[in-house]
Order: sequence, then structure tokens, then C-alpha cells
Amino acid sequence: MQGLDLLGKVLLDEGGLIAGQLPTYLGALDAWRPRRPTYRDLVLDAPGFDPIAALAGAQFAYTVPNFSNPTGKLVGLAMRDRLVEAAHATGTWLVEDDPYGTLHYDGAPLPRMIALSGRQGAGKAYDGPVIYMGTVSKEIAPGLRVGWMVAAPAMIAALTTAKQGSDMCTSGVTQRIALAALESGLIERNQPAVVKLYRERRDALCAALAAHLGAWFTWEVPVGGMFVWALARDAALDTDRLWAAALEAGVCVAPSSVFDAAGRNRRALRINFTLNPPDRLAEGVRRLATAVRAMA
Amino acid sequence: MQGLDLLGKVLLDEGGLIAGQLPTYLGALDAWRPRRPTYRDLVLDAPGFDPIAALAGAQFAYTVPNFSNPTGKLVGLAMRDRLVEAAHATGTWLVEDDPYGTLHYDGAPLPRMIALSGRQGAGKAYDGPVIYMGTVSKEIAPGLRVGWMVAAPAMIAALTTAKQGSDMCTSGVTQRIALAALESGLIERNQPAVVKLYRERRDALCAALAAHLGAWFTWEVPVGGMFVWALARDAALDTDRLWAAALEAGVCVAPSSVFDAAGRNRRALRINFTLNPPDRLAEGVRRLATAVRAMA
Repeated sequence: MQGLDLLGKVLLDEGGLIAGQLPTYLGALDAWRPRRPTYRDLVLDAPGFDPIAALAGAQFAYTVPNFSNPTGKLVGLAMRDRLVEAAHATGTWLVEDDPYGTLHYDGAPLPRMIALSGRQGAGKAYDGPVIYMGTVSKEIAPGLRVGWMVAAPAMIAALTTAKQGSDMCTSGVTQRIALAALESGLIERNQPAVVKLYRERRDALCAALAAHLGAWFTWEVPVGGMFVWALARDAALDTDRLWAAALEAGVCVAPSSVFDAAGRNRRALRINFTLNPPDRLAEGVRRLATAVRAMA
Repeated sequence: MQGLDLLGKVLLDEGGLIAGQLPTYLGALDAWRPRRPTYRDLVLDAPGFDPIAALAGAQFAYTVPNFSNPTGKLVGLAMRDRLVEAAHATGTWLVEDDPYGTLHYDGAPLPRMIALSGRQGAGKAYDGPVIYMGTVSKEIAPGLRVGWMVAAPAMIAALTTAKQGSDMCTSGVTQRIALAALESGLIERNQPAVVKLYRERRDALCAALAAHLGAWFTWEVPVGGMFVWALARDAALDTDRLWAAALEAGVCVAPSSVFDAAGRNRRALRINFTLNPPDRLAEGVRRLATAVRAMA
């Protein structure tokens, strides 16, 4: 996630405008908070959403097309094309943050936006407006803290300067571990087991939700990633209050307000399914249901 | 050096005032550049230097009391006391950046300013204005990228929030390596050999300077650290030009202009002595002398 901080240093003026996919990754909001940005909400599935109007004039647009944190949603190919076209048309930088792209449980991966953008200048070094961010955090270990960015050479040069001013460089020890894991094929060999494990956990969580919380919440079964986004059927159910009640009941979920720079959305929950085995996921949902009933 | 970036995030407003020991570590200037700070020069050995006037109104004061990068100078005990008193009197945060403190070749180490400050509240948790920064970079390996900060609890809490927004956390792998090195006594066992090696190199560099460059430069033999600061006898000798000529002659030194946010000082050179063995240091000085003669 350090790439988000570096992006802010390179692209964001004090109080500058970010077009941010809403709900937004909490870590991104934290990274940019010191510059007091303003946000224009990118609600990609809103009726009549116009990517050009959404991107125009922003210092950059921030998206997580694969299984966004917090919603777990996948941005479809048509919308990826439209966002890339809008970035080219407006000249607004389009950030494609992709930590979850390899955690794909159903169906085939969609093309990355930077690949879609690159097609417009085939045969040349990439000089388009997409800035791609990857990581080994979800495939090896988050504790390595190794990721990468792919972008036009001038943008990479600016990000490198910002990186040098931030911490000189990332540890050579952890970079070498990550490189060895990538070059040796370790990640590819390990990935099917990871995907199988997480798919079972996703299914276990969704089954438990259906058994215990269907009366209060709706959700889509995510096709990848780490999270289920549960929306309260009753707009008056306050998930900030539910978060506190759930903690008392012995289960931790993330309330939707923290994924919104303005804290307006208090109707949804982000529920992680990758950390715990099925029986603990089921127990967690039972505790969450206890908390909901106590509030009702 | 990430601590410098975090300090900027916590303490520095856009365009804010830093009281910075001049010349200033280049990495610090780089870390704070995105916030376009203004600088008040702390020239600690200037006649009539008044620490209270120097610190008052600044968002923080930045010092490297042990063998500053670039000058290699040691700030004496009396001045440490005066700086600490001024920080208490003015309420200005006093940053004590100490990467070189263990590289002590002559004489005994002086007390850290945070220890001097802490004496004023003996028996209580430290709540003074000094922010201390340490690292294993000079004792184990800079490639670990592990350091620490010591400060009042409220300041540590703010720095921790800034750290989380910057990169979530430092790799657990490298933190564990550093911790094992500290706890096992590896650093203490290794340190005498490091000090002996670097002392010999310091002496070799200074001997070569005396043999080849005494007519053009003056310098103090540093009692610790990694650098000799050589001041041109002739104020008209432009070390930016000399830097370029020296590169052509096959030796790399750092011109004084890069250690000054305004780039005014073009009369001195920073020469590192820890990287190379004595014969290469001597050869480097011969090349530097060739470059000086070619400019004269």
C-alpha cells in the first residue's frame, strides 16, 4: 500500500480532488488524509454513470477493479474499457490497485486496465494514463511488504523520487525473497491451494450468512477476493452501532462508514472470509446474528 | 530515514518552518520537499548562536548531534544542553537524528539529548520535546531498512498513525532479523571491528588529503561517523564544478550545495571514508587533486 502514499506525493496537491471508487479502501483514505483531499465518488454501478464526467478535472482516479476492498465486487470488461477511454480522453491518471487479482474463485480473470490502455499504442513503450499496483501480500505473505507499480516511464521516475524521499528504498532482503518466490514458480505452485482454501471459506461464510442473517442483510456472493459486503435491508440499521455490539458479542467486522471519506454510509458491513476456517466463520456469523437481534 | 518522512507528516504544514542544522542531511531535505517547507538555518558553531531564538516558532528543529551527515561534526555537551533547554522553553520539537552515534573513533560518547531532556522529569514517562531516531543501518546493514523513534507517548501515537498511512508497517521479516541481532549481542560483538576498520579508513583518508589537497582545502579530522567535510581555502573554488570534474577524473564526492535547501553553499565537499579501503581512498584523493589542479 506504500504505492498509495507515493501516488499522493506525486499527484495530489493540498486539498486536491480524487475521483475515488466508492466505497474506498480504508488504507487509501489514510494514505491521502495528510493532504486533506476532496473526493468525487465513483459509484461504477450507479445508473447513468459517466466515466468522462467522473474523471475530468480530478488529480487522479482510484479504482480496485478486482474484488474491491471492501465490497468484493468485480468491475466488468465493458466498464474497464469505458474507464480507460475516459482516462485517455480526460488526461486524468487512472490508478488500478490490484492486490486481489489472483484470488479468483469463479470464472476467468478479466484483462487489466493497463493492458487495455496499452493496446492503444501497440509496439511502443507504455505511455498511457493507467498506473497499475501489484503486491505479493496476498500470494506469499503481507509481512513481506513488497509490491510494485507499472506505469509510463515518466510517472515511474516521479514515483521513484518520491520513494527515495520516503524511505530510501525497500529492504533488499525482502525484495530478494519476493523475487525468488516469483522466479522459482513458488507462487504458481502454491496458488491453487490458496484459491481452493479461500473458495471453501467464502462458501462457508455465505452459507452461514444465509442461515442466520438473511432476514436482515443482502449480499452478493463475491467471485474473488477476501470480503463479503453485506447491506442491511433496513436503512435504519446503523452498522457503526452494530460494529460495537458485534465486538461485545465476540466478533469483529468492519462498518461501512470507514470506507467513505465522509463517513456517510452506515448501512453495510465488510466481512472477511479468508482468515478463519469454516467453523469459526459460522460461529462468527452466529455471534453477529446475536448482536443484530439484540439491537433490533 | 522513513522517520523523517513521518515527522513531516505529523509536524509540518504546507510551507511550514523547519529550524535545520546547516548543512543538512540531503535525505531530510528530500523527505520534507513535498511540503515545500521554509528553513531557518541552525549554524550551531556560529558566534552568538542563540538556541531559543533559533527554535522559537519553528514546527520542529532538526539536528544530527553525532557526526552529522555531511560535516562529521560532533555537537558538544554544552550545546546539547542549550538546545534541550531551548526546546523546553519554546515548546518546539527537537529532532535528534542519530544514525552515526555508535561510530565513535576517539573519546567517549556524549549523552543523548533525549536523555538530557528526560532528566528534567526523572521518575515519570518521558513527555519532553525531544524526538530521537535510531537505526541498525550503520551497525548491521542499511539494506535491512529498520530504525526506531523514541519520543513522548502522544508523539509516538501520532507517528504510528502516520506510519500506518504510509506503508501499514515495516516488514516483520526484517524487524525480526534486527531484533535477533540486538538481543543476541551480535551488534556489540561486531562493533569493535567496525570501529577499528572505519578508524583506519578515516586516518587513511585524512593522511591522503594532507598529502595531496592541503594547499586547496582545510578540514577537521572527524572523531566519528563516515565523512570528512573539506572546505576550500579559496571562496571562489566552486565545488559544484569540482564535483563534475572529479567524476570525469574517476572519483565521486558530494558537493556542499546539495546539503542546503537553497543550494547556496558551493565551497565544500563531503568525502566518505567508510566504503573504501585505504589504497582506494588514497587513489580517490589523487584523482580529486587532479580534478582540482585542472580547474585551477
